[in-house]
Amino acid sequence: MTPSWTLRADRALPSDPEVRPIAREIYTTIADLPIRSMHGHVDVTVLARDEAFGNPAEVLVTPDHYLTRMLVSQGQSLVSLGVLDRATNTKEQDPREIFRRFAEGWHLFRGTPTKLWMEHVLVEVFGVQERLSGETADAAYDLISDALKTDAFRPRALLDRFRITKLATTDGAADSLAHHHRIAEDLGEGRIVPTFRPDPFLVLDAPGWRTQIHALAEACGTTVETYAGYISALEMRREAFIAAGASAVDIGVTHLDTTPLSDAEASRIFDAALASTVTPQEAAAFCGHMLTEMARMSTEDGLVMQLHSGALRSHDPAVRDAFGADVGYDIPIAMEFTRALQPLLARFGHHPRFTLILFTLDEDTYSRELAPMAGVYPAVKLGAPWWFLDAPDAMRRGREAVTETAGFYNTTGFVDDTRAFFSIPARHDLSRRIDAGYLARLVAEHRLELDEAIAVAYDLTVTLPQQAYARK
Amino acid sequence: MTPSWTLRADRALPSDPEVRPIAREIYTTIADLPIRSMHGHVDVTVLARDEAFGNPAEVLVTPDHYLTRMLVSQGQSLVSLGVLDRATNTKEQDPREIFRRFAEGWHLFRGTPTKLWMEHVLVEVFGVQERLSGETADAAYDLISDALKTDAFRPRALLDRFRITKLATTDGAADSLAHHHRIAEDLGEGRIVPTFRPDPFLVLDAPGWRTQIHALAEACGTTVETYAGYISALEMRREAFIAAGASAVDIGVTHLDTTPLSDAEASRIFDAALASTVTPQEAAAFCGHMLTEMARMSTEDGLVMQLHSGALRSHDPAVRDAFGADVGYDIPIAMEFTRALQPLLARFGHHPRFTLILFTLDEDTYSRELAPMAGVYPAVKLGAPWWFLDAPDAMRRGREAVTETAGFYNTTGFVDDTRAFFSIPARHDLSRRIDAGYLARLVAEHRLELDEAIAVAYDLTVTLPQQAYARK
Amino acid sequence: MTPSWTLRADRALPSDPEVRPIAREIYTTIADLPIRSMHGHVDVTVLARDEAFGNPAEVLVTPDHYLTRMLVSQGQSLVSLGVLDRATNTKEQDPREIFRRFAEGWHLFRGTPTKLWMEHVLVEVFGVQERLSGETADAAYDLISDALKTDAFRPRALLDRFRITKLATTDGAADSLAHHHRIAEDLGEGRIVPTFRPDPFLVLDAPGWRTQIHALAEACGTTVETYAGYISALEMRREAFIAAGASAVDIGVTHLDTTPLSDAEASRIFDAALASTVTPQEAAAFCGHMLTEMARMSTEDGLVMQLHSGALRSHDPAVRDAFGADVGYDIPIAMEFTRALQPLLARFGHHPRFTLILFTLDEDTYSRELAPMAGVYPAVKLGAPWWFLDAPDAMRRGREAVTETAGFYNTTGFVDDTRAFFSIPARHDLSRRIDAGYLARLVAEHRLELDEAIAVAYDLTVTLPQQAYARK
Repeated sequence: MTPSWTLRADRALPSDPEVRPIAREIYTTIADLPIRSMHGHVDVTVLARDEAFGNPAEVLVTPDHYLTRMLVSQGQSLVSLGVLDRATNTKEQDPREIFRRFAEGWHLFRGTPTKLWMEHVLVEVFGVQERLSGETADAAYDLISDALKTDAFRPRALLDRFRITKLATTDGAADSLAHHHRIAEDLGEGRIVPTFRPDPFLVLDAPGWRTQIHALAEACGTTVETYAGYISALEMRREAFIAAGASAVDIGVTHLDTTPLSDAEASRIFDAALASTVTPQEAAAFCGHMLTEMARMSTEDGLVMQLHSGALRSHDPAVRDAFGADVGYDIPIAMEFTRALQPLLARFGHHPRFTLILFTLDEDTYSRELAPMAGVYPAVKLGAPWWFLDAPDAMRRGREAVTETAGFYNTTGFVDDTRAFFSIPARHDLSRRIDAGYLARLVAEHRLELDEAIAVAYDLTVTLPQQAYARK
Repeated sequence: MTPSWTLRADRALPSDPEVRPIAREIYTTIADLPIRSMHGHVDVTVLARDEAFGNPAEVLVTPDHYLTRMLVSQGQSLVSLGVLDRATNTKEQDPREIFRRFAEGWHLFRGTPTKLWMEHVLVEVFGVQERLSGETADAAYDLISDALKTDAFRPRALLDRFRITKLATTDGAADSLAHHHRIAEDLGEGRIVPTFRPDPFLVLDAPGWRTQIHALAEACGTTVETYAGYISALEMRREAFIAAGASAVDIGVTHLDTTPLSDAEASRIFDAALASTVTPQEAAAFCGHMLTEMARMSTEDGLVMQLHSGALRSHDPAVRDAFGADVGYDIPIAMEFTRALQPLLARFGHHPRFTLILFTLDEDTYSRELAPMAGVYPAVKLGAPWWFLDAPDAMRRGREAVTETAGFYNTTGFVDDTRAFFSIPARHDLSRRIDAGYLARLVAEHRLELDEAIAVAYDLTVTLPQQAYARK
Repeated sequence: MTPSWTLRADRALPSDPEVRPIAREIYTTIADLPIRSMHGHVDVTVLARDEAFGNPAEVLVTPDHYLTRMLVSQGQSLVSLGVLDRATNTKEQDPREIFRRFAEGWHLFRGTPTKLWMEHVLVEVFGVQERLSGETADAAYDLISDALKTDAFRPRALLDRFRITKLATTDGAADSLAHHHRIAEDLGEGRIVPTFRPDPFLVLDAPGWRTQIHALAEACGTTVETYAGYISALEMRREAFIAAGASAVDIGVTHLDTTPLSDAEASRIFDAALASTVTPQEAAAFCGHMLTEMARMSTEDGLVMQLHSGALRSHDPAVRDAFGADVGYDIPIAMEFTRALQPLLARFGHHPRFTLILFTLDEDTYSRELAPMAGVYPAVKLGAPWWFLDAPDAMRRGREAVTETAGFYNTTGFVDDTRAFFSIPARHDLSRRIDAGYLARLVAEHRLELDEAIAVAYDLTVTLPQQAYARK
């Protein structure tokens, strides 16, 4: 049977007949280059164990908050999509039913990147032959389910099939990194590397902070009873991550501030946190201080510092209580980078061992603040359009807003930022298409020659991620 | 004589030769669909009385603040355009002169939607045959003037000619709704419906608030001497609106906040307002509280809640004193929705009887805040680009900023938001063209198949306005 | 030898085959029109002395902070590019080496306007025949160096070659204007005119303010010991500028506020500044007050008031200490105009002798605040996209964000805002191309007729700069 659902060769390339042939020519030069996934959230245990993935619902639907949030916005409940309600300890148990709910809502994704990613996954990776709908749901489910049981669909086999030559995971700062060491033995060093994520240790008034500190101390084989001990423990863990191949730190904060504190003041606040008497103001000041400390550590150990900011986490507290974090209820807020980063950049913005990669969810900051800073401070690089902005038009707008001030060479190339392992090739492919389209327009408008555009496309795909994420 | 001024069939469709034929194909499927005008400001008395409209100036020029503001910005005075200066009790008395001033400034509207709307009105509705200018002004005036005297140009006849099958007006919460009842008798129920506008009752420190409260009490045949009585009166009026066919509430606030107060605190502030001792801070807190109360009422009576925010009204106080409100001097300000709506959405964001339609004048909030919220909360829908943003490029930017995160199905379709009755078809037609053009680009870029785009176009024109504005 | 590096005739015009021929037709009508450079920073002494420019590095590289900041962001130091480090009194001395560093970094400018401007300068003005690179650097250097020694490349000869019929410089309020008077004798009055720049006199707590006041007094042949004397001195200097041909004032502030003070309060703060006891809050309030005073003076002497706001100057204090201001470290911040300008516009927004030209670095304010204000207040005009926004896509976005609300006729036409004399034709040419492209799209979308577009293009190039910058 001839499949009625196929991927168009020119998808996501500009339609303008003067631009598209150029875009295709540029895209062709980078389409098959290997993937370096330098910032993502794939669960390392999946790659360590290399066992078969689960059923289609638990692989493709339930954990993908881009997908579940859209279905929820149109009346589905998280429970009905397989997310556990901790309060009632219930969730939909039938994966086929969950998958069907997704298929029945397929039209809701029109115009979204989820549609493009899932088409790539379903058609290209799994070979689904008919457009998703309530009618075709079961056939697609069966096909995917059968494929997932085969060896060809085990994680490491897919790693090769997807041509992923490097993959950075995100790991808690107290993590033992045992899985990474095991994978390094199996696959060689440097293919799967950890990323140091210290967030829970930086927010002194978060619930469970002292438990986290205990875990941190344990991971170091020491105790953490003072600010100096805390700093030292974080430095030790960074070294352990470096030993496991890490090249980068990833930090996410809601409120951005980088005002340093004196050691005495930092110590005082840290002690207050241990004594559970810290105020929200003190905790916020400490967090800002620790961003500067993380930068200082980077100048000493060379780890690249990634900084994400601008989402108000768990907007609906009842949803957080029932389902936990990261279920689609984080909502962006307006950002201010110019003043907030000034103290940090005044200290380290020209340091030869420091790289600071910035991400935003507030598009206005691209041309107003981020590109001007990346366009002068050697340490600053702009991360790829992230999260809600990781979509064709948003990525294009990102390039248009950034390039005229910061050029291409102060950006890092694409990062997929995903826990959806199957969609990694789709995301990188889409990004390459958008970059090719943007470059092709510059060529068609005679703002760039074709050879320059092809060189830039290669650099965006290979050179810049390598350089930006290289430990210094 | 062959008219030298005509409307181009492909106007406002994309020029890209790969996109335009697709856009035309999509547009053709929706071009002649009836108009459901679910949010507008047509004066209901016009439709109740069904008398001939006035002269060309008072119909097309004087009341249109898009139009007068542009002429004022280039040196005309409001008085010279027929707006009454209350201080001096003067205004231009000669409608022909007023119309000529508009015609002489026709070039000022190049690039604006007013040009497109007025071309549609003049050429399509009235049959003007030569481009507007100082030279052609009198001929156009005479032609329009003659037409307006004919029966074919009376309001209800135009309602049919314009294929307006449903029209929502905006009405003060204390309105008797007598006009609506009379129209329902004449035209059947549900064609012209009121919208409940409570704004003046929510701002306790506005001049005349107690007069308003008196009118509210009178409309209910009761007295309003307590907070409980006030709430009860508002609920009674909502019921009266529902009985008259209303499906929605429309609220506009300058400062957005939805923090609820305790009943005791709300009562205390309400009493202070009655005693004229309320502070601006108390009045602001009460207004924020009342947004949450309005949402609570919607969960009980099912009225859709529309929320407009983000304009600083009457920027020039001297203009307000002389000419009143709504004469073109409202200027937008930066908006924050994520934190401001959090209390309201935490309470009612998942309520099955609640629909909250959001409008903005700050484009940055589309991708940053509004689309992320609409893309997860079932209650939240995004209203059409509004006011200054109701224009070809702004509408296109709106779709581009919203769709990738919220899709099409969390938007409401177009609303014309106008008091300019003659321009209603022009506005809906322009919106349909822009939607067709946006969808066509997605098709040309293989991000959507043509059949999907045609289905979306129909839904944006028919299904979504019906669903979003259906009382639940 | 056939040059391998040429300028494409259609550069920076839209690629869409339906739009480009129209764009070309529109552009052709304005391409060769003379340049009126109404806002720039060319050093008047260069034109007064009319001596040969220096070497290629000091002409094209070292003073251009667009250019040096990009090279710095990729690892060059300002010292290595010829900027003097005042602390160590060092800078690169070899201009050939500086030029080579620029040439080796040529690829970094891909996608930036600097690339387009420099291509125009190198190919069109100097006749460089091979694309810039490390290999071609020396040949280009020699060619430019030789040209700069010829009479044809002296400032006034270039002024003619570039068809610059009017050029406004920027001059300190205490400047003697002797250079301007000399030029007026040589070239006739009104070709090179000064612009009154009062910034240093408005910031009472800036280091050196009292020295500035002393200079101001001296320029007036008086003393300045009171607020009244200070106001009077500024008024006298404005008259001196008017006598030297000035038509405009240019003011830049970081924080925008226009709340007037009483004379008593202004006097009190002024006295505190003279006594060096002024607080930052007082100084800020005084600066806001002085914006209103500057507007008041404009209503009396007719000077056009330009207002720039929104950059945090000298983001890195160590760079400022070593290299001074204006070396590429000014970073934009979010702006608010609606509330900030309300007091000023309530007083003078309709004054017949007042023109206020606004510039922004925060693109979100274009559609949200600036276009709505320019679209109603007769005094308000929108300046060209400025600084970081003076680039093809940013200029296009500017037109798209502004035109639908404010039209074309509330904008001022292009200003180059540059101290890079050689790039003035490149900048005006690029702007004309972008305007032609924007207008052509409107024509191709049937939103404008071709004759209207051609009329607008002429007005943007000739009429609007003339009118907006005419002293009233």
